Amino acid sequence: MEPLPDAVREFVRDARVCRIASVRVTGQPHVIPVCPVFDGEATLYVDIGGRYTTAEGVRANGRIAVLIDEYDDEWSRLKGVLLRCHAEPIEGEEKERAWEMIREKFPQYKPIGWEPRLTLALRIYDWRQWGVTERAQSQPE
Amino acid sequence: MEPLPDAVREFVRDARVCRIASVRVTGQPHVIPVCPVFDGEATLYVDIGGRYTTAEGVRANGRIAVLIDEYDDEWSRLKGVLLRCHAEPIEGEEKERAWEMIREKFPQYKPIGWEPRLTLALRIYDWRQWGVTERAQSQPE
Repeated sequence: MEPLPDAVREFVRDARVCRIASVRVTGQPHVIPVCPVFDGEATLYVDIGGRYTTAEGVRANGRIAVLIDEYDDEWSRLKGVLLRCHAEPIEGEEKERAWEMIREKFPQYKPIGWEPRLTLALRIYDWRQWGVTERAQSQPE
Repeated sequence: MEPLPDAVREFVRDARVCRIASVRVTGQPHVIPVCPVFDGEATLYVDIGGRYTTAEGVRANGRIAVLIDEYDDEWSRLKGVLLRCHAEPIEGEEKERAWEMIREKFPQYKPIGWEPRLTLALRIYDWRQWGVTERAQSQPE
């Protein structure tokens, strides 16, 4: 995989929300919004409900497509990054590191008392971007 | 299908962007942002590139999951609607009606000279919402 350019890394790192698409056990598409953290290299971490549709799809299929995009009515300002990922439930040290990042980036977790549910590492194996950097410009599909 | 409550219809009608998830011919998930119009009842219309990944997935699978959501760092204000749809390419009168709505809602199309590409009717067969209306409240998954 071509490494993510710096501008793309910043865009991914700063995202407050992303939309993650999965394939349900029935073969149908599914998509939810989640709050991601980024390790700065090639892995995002998200925490999702373990008994929900996305979790079932991840167990069956193991793939997630992550969309981070900003809409603007001035279409020349549209920007986005699509990340194709292998999704992997994590435990132990990697989970602890992920949750340090989550608690720092999203202090909202604290007062509502959420504990880790199903924490996933989304390991990026391919990506595209539009509007974020001049380099490797590509069209949204 | 339970009809969409008025508040959900308004939320869908007013959306400037939605994210649509599909299943690729390879079985992997895909997701893109698109600008939708809504007939006010149970069909969204979107126009996508006919040779791109989403179009291939629609031809192979025929299903689209549509996410319309608004993120807010105050998580009690999160809102969203998930629409499960059958996707169907349209031609003729229905396509003309769809494009009347698209041109009215998105005058941005005019100066960039886009002509209809692959115009899809997304016929809603199931839905969930959170934060949009008190009725039929459900959790994001």
